[in-house]
Amino acid sequence: MKIGIIGASGYTGVELLRLLHNHPKAEVVYLTSQSNDSKPASLIYPHLDSLYEHNFVTLDDVVKNISSLDLIFTALPHGHAMAIGKLIAGGTTRLIDIGADYRFKDYKIYEEWYKVEHTHKDHLAVYGLSELNYEQIKTAQIVANPGCYPTASILALYPLIKNGLIENSTIIVDAASGTSGAGKALKNSYLFSEVFENFSPYGVTTHRHTPEIEEFLSLAAGERITITFTPHLVPMTRGILATCYAKLKPEVDEAKIAAAFKDYDNKHFIRVKKATPPSTKNTRGSNYADIGWFIDERTGRIIVFCAIDNLVKGASGQAIQNMNIMFGLDEKMGLELGPVYP
Amino acid sequence: MKIGIIGASGYTGVELLRLLHNHPKAEVVYLTSQSNDSKPASLIYPHLDSLYEHNFVTLDDVVKNISSLDLIFTALPHGHAMAIGKLIAGGTTRLIDIGADYRFKDYKIYEEWYKVEHTHKDHLAVYGLSELNYEQIKTAQIVANPGCYPTASILALYPLIKNGLIENSTIIVDAASGTSGAGKALKNSYLFSEVFENFSPYGVTTHRHTPEIEEFLSLAAGERITITFTPHLVPMTRGILATCYAKLKPEVDEAKIAAAFKDYDNKHFIRVKKATPPSTKNTRGSNYADIGWFIDERTGRIIVFCAIDNLVKGASGQAIQNMNIMFGLDEKMGLELGPVYP
Amino acid sequence: MKIGIIGASGYTGVELLRLLHNHPKAEVVYLTSQSNDSKPASLIYPHLDSLYEHNFVTLDDVVKNISSLDLIFTALPHGHAMAIGKLIAGGTTRLIDIGADYRFKDYKIYEEWYKVEHTHKDHLAVYGLSELNYEQIKTAQIVANPGCYPTASILALYPLIKNGLIENSTIIVDAASGTSGAGKALKNSYLFSEVFENFSPYGVTTHRHTPEIEEFLSLAAGERITITFTPHLVPMTRGILATCYAKLKPEVDEAKIAAAFKDYDNKHFIRVKKATPPSTKNTRGSNYADIGWFIDERTGRIIVFCAIDNLVKGASGQAIQNMNIMFGLDEKMGLELGPVYP
Amino acid sequence: MKIGIIGASGYTGVELLRLLHNHPKAEVVYLTSQSNDSKPASLIYPHLDSLYEHNFVTLDDVVKNISSLDLIFTALPHGHAMAIGKLIAGGTTRLIDIGADYRFKDYKIYEEWYKVEHTHKDHLAVYGLSELNYEQIKTAQIVANPGCYPTASILALYPLIKNGLIENSTIIVDAASGTSGAGKALKNSYLFSEVFENFSPYGVTTHRHTPEIEEFLSLAAGERITITFTPHLVPMTRGILATCYAKLKPEVDEAKIAAAFKDYDNKHFIRVKKATPPSTKNTRGSNYADIGWFIDERTGRIIVFCAIDNLVKGASGQAIQNMNIMFGLDEKMGLELGPVYP
Repeated sequence: MKIGIIGASGYTGVELLRLLHNHPKAEVVYLTSQSNDSKPASLIYPHLDSLYEHNFVTLDDVVKNISSLDLIFTALPHGHAMAIGKLIAGGTTRLIDIGADYRFKDYKIYEEWYKVEHTHKDHLAVYGLSELNYEQIKTAQIVANPGCYPTASILALYPLIKNGLIENSTIIVDAASGTSGAGKALKNSYLFSEVFENFSPYGVTTHRHTPEIEEFLSLAAGERITITFTPHLVPMTRGILATCYAKLKPEVDEAKIAAAFKDYDNKHFIRVKKATPPSTKNTRGSNYADIGWFIDERTGRIIVFCAIDNLVKGASGQAIQNMNIMFGLDEKMGLELGPVYP
Repeated sequence: MKIGIIGASGYTGVELLRLLHNHPKAEVVYLTSQSNDSKPASLIYPHLDSLYEHNFVTLDDVVKNISSLDLIFTALPHGHAMAIGKLIAGGTTRLIDIGADYRFKDYKIYEEWYKVEHTHKDHLAVYGLSELNYEQIKTAQIVANPGCYPTASILALYPLIKNGLIENSTIIVDAASGTSGAGKALKNSYLFSEVFENFSPYGVTTHRHTPEIEEFLSLAAGERITITFTPHLVPMTRGILATCYAKLKPEVDEAKIAAAFKDYDNKHFIRVKKATPPSTKNTRGSNYADIGWFIDERTGRIIVFCAIDNLVKGASGQAIQNMNIMFGLDEKMGLELGPVYP
Repeated sequence: MKIGIIGASGYTGVELLRLLHNHPKAEVVYLTSQSNDSKPASLIYPHLDSLYEHNFVTLDDVVKNISSLDLIFTALPHGHAMAIGKLIAGGTTRLIDIGADYRFKDYKIYEEWYKVEHTHKDHLAVYGLSELNYEQIKTAQIVANPGCYPTASILALYPLIKNGLIENSTIIVDAASGTSGAGKALKNSYLFSEVFENFSPYGVTTHRHTPEIEEFLSLAAGERITITFTPHLVPMTRGILATCYAKLKPEVDEAKIAAAFKDYDNKHFIRVKKATPPSTKNTRGSNYADIGWFIDERTGRIIVFCAIDNLVKGASGQAIQNMNIMFGLDEKMGLELGPVYP
Repeated sequence: MKIGIIGASGYTGVELLRLLHNHPKAEVVYLTSQSNDSKPASLIYPHLDSLYEHNFVTLDDVVKNISSLDLIFTALPHGHAMAIGKLIAGGTTRLIDIGADYRFKDYKIYEEWYKVEHTHKDHLAVYGLSELNYEQIKTAQIVANPGCYPTASILALYPLIKNGLIENSTIIVDAASGTSGAGKALKNSYLFSEVFENFSPYGVTTHRHTPEIEEFLSLAAGERITITFTPHLVPMTRGILATCYAKLKPEVDEAKIAAAFKDYDNKHFIRVKKATPPSTKNTRGSNYADIGWFIDERTGRIIVFCAIDNLVKGASGQAIQNMNIMFGLDEKMGLELGPVYP
């Protein structure tokens, strides 16, 4: 498989490079970075030294040769992948967009939350939550890789909603992320001195991952679901934990919940435990999603946690998992990396 | 004021020492530490060098001289302060217990959650949430200093409950704390290598601060309130953030909520902001409690955050604030320390 | 004392504010910040809320009223304080420059290392290492507050050099600092994701604090001293540790070294221990400089460590100590803050 | 290859498991842990869930079956591997000891610094610095895996000493390590609250890695070398940086130094850069050793840095590299993992 990575100089871009280095079937042909055009990738990222000999190229270089590629990953700010999506229409090159452009079935939600016009409304992209959309991903030309918070939140809540076990109007997702999710944006609030020894909420009631979680869960429920979603910034680089709350429906007991999560038994990258809280460290550097659930008998609520590495299962790892599915490979190929502990 | 600190070698004990060093009216006479008996405090804690010349003494040394003291702080694991409380009964020495022994009006709740018999059931201790129990604290012989999570959670929720603005059955407190709250317990899970680059829940559905929050809020509400409370461990030393969720009652609007929080306007250590999330860093090392609140219009919920330094407003700082109130001093005395930023 | 702070919106500026808040004789009149002109300081720095009511003003506002001020602190990038220094010449307003402009007796060294012309060559500024230049500081109109690395390095080495105990040609200073020393500069390498879980050298053989250390030590030695100085960045916010190496002269034994360090016995903010390594945490938030020294018998070297909080003894705390000395106050005034531990 | 890991429940033990999981020729048969005997490894280490199905066994279980194994890794405190070394004598099972028991050619040095009798004095173990002892490692029955600090220090200094470019009596190694090097020892000083926001020296003039570095360098020099070695603890989990200083011999210039380091050009895991400081983050999770060197013209010294991940190139990664060499495999097998950045 010949691969181009558009936007290879961000954190998700270099994480793709780390993971693809161990993939036996993938050959990275192009890496683009507008700002680092024609410089060696290992000059900008010394950790890649002796792993990649590539120079960064421009987007134009890829566009010219696009039909020679089997797959393109776009790791761009929202609004920029749609042009690539339109470009490959009708061809055989396939696209996995790690950004937000193709995540919504309803483009109006995208336009409302992202304040950008959707210029590729007739796309047939599949939402790339690998375990839940496995069959559709196989044949998709465009896969919209899910956001990091939505990956954790949806994996935690889906079995409960699909099986009708919770009151859907009571869902609250309280989540926390390391800083790599913010990328390399040069903002004062991302300076080490500001983030260190600090825990702080952000994007309260307005975070763009809210409608993404809602749309997927609504489809699973067969009814419109509205949630409260509150992200927090944790002083660490990698890791997301979603803590999800909902009221259990009457008569729902432990056995029913256990049965619902049993659907994950054959999902390699999902590890479920009853009454055991997961922690981000146990997933760091790996593609695992660790789920733990508790019944709060005193209040009739369920609490479900999901921990992932935001750059792996929450971004580049799931992107490669989707690539494997799209190209008929074992979904684990190149991803059987144990968590980096401690 | 002559002061004894029983249990002076834990983190809350040495934080008392840091703060009392700047207090013009307090004279620390005794510091106890069973394990460090007769050693200089500054040998065990080099940061205290040139601040305190004291040697640690044993509990017996204090007991013998207890009537010579105006005030005792107990900073002990639960179960150990009741003996001190009984000892001072009938005398003039007063007690501020930073532990849990005197926090519950209903001793049965204490016995149920702490698995210890309450041996001082007829105590008349006052719950030392300084701003909310100011008048009772003035004359109390025993003040039960609140837990760190309860301080943040109650300060966030009290105005809403007191004013009947939320559905009390929908309250969820999702909280996160730095590691100093766990003290110096030698447990594998508190090792640096385990906590660093990790975010993890603990005590899910079982944390002992749950009934403490519930009892105080229930009294404010005039009805029994049961909440879901989920603490998380953050890789930082100091700081607690409580993120509180509740459904607003019908017809409750922004103006009513603003009015409820206005009661805090004359509370020096409470800083309230609408639609601005607080962060723990802005309170670090200080006695401030920073509150921010948001209405989630899409779901009809309110989200209230409260950030404190768990060792200051969440423990030793509030203890000194209570001392000031008990002895007729300005409650700010010795506590006008700006946050240590960045 | 009426005080103006020029450059009050950097980390050393706000640290001055934290410390001056507890100073009984200082009244902060003006805070300048070009970029935040006329905004409330507590809007830009929420941690100052309820501590300072000031709005930021411009430099012009201060210049107009300069003669009404007793003291100005400049906390500016190098090159900008000289204009202020010239402005006060002949008047009674005094100046403490926390930057580098007045640190060198030999302006040519300044021009060589800072690549800027010195425009106030005839200044009579005193180098403000409080303990070592106490008498000169008393009467100085301009005090050049030392750099953070030089403060730690000089305090560690001075007694050895002054007393002729080491081979001056063998001095190596290997130092490490938290990130607040870099200020709020928006550089990619200061992002949390880059600094966290990283330890890295920088400025190798070229750091500007090298000649500052050398000039002071050379004066003490009565001969020109050249050192190797290597700084490293530590993933923490505050703290500097200087690890200093030198060959002992023949016949120098433990007793002679102990005698040399005895000169610090009456220096309140210097705490010396033999054969005990200091750690930055024990000084955090305080004005202490902790020194520990070891003889390496196997190699005939001495190893001297000095730990400080770079923003306090390494910048704003020492500036206030100098202010106290200049105005005939107890040098400890406003600085008797215990370290913030843990 | 059938493999037993003795002492599999420490940090180097589980790091071996992480790395061996990706090794195509290695089959882990036994994992021992005295304290966790017969428990599933993934119960004690949830991050291993779905990676390893093994239960921990006791040392006896391995001893009984030792001849069925091709290789044993011992990851034990010093003093415990000698029994295993004697047990395999005369057999075909080979041993890589990640501890210190076999690191010294001169057992008296071991006994002096480790305060333990050496009970296997006639061993023929080879010091496993893979790149420098490649040929001897091939045929060794016992390989003594180097300590973490020695790996970084020796790789940095060896080319200079071997080529006679520096004054050997002037060598100083100032090093800093993350906490995982200390293992899971339950000591107060390793608690998160103590290590975080702290930088501190330890083991000054007495660290046991000192003689290990000296013995190897002395053999390279053909003369006895004594160094000053000072380790520091950095608030991070993984990573070591050695900062090495030495006086250059007269007439040694940049070209000669560059030529000396050229010997590393064909060493896959060593990446050398002139005048570029390495950082631990660029090696994290990988087997790379990154070297940077600078000439300090002003003092005639050379400064050489070497950064590694202490658990990989500094322990388990190099152990697997040695395993590959011993068994005639490509030394990179199972180790081609890119650094985990950021």
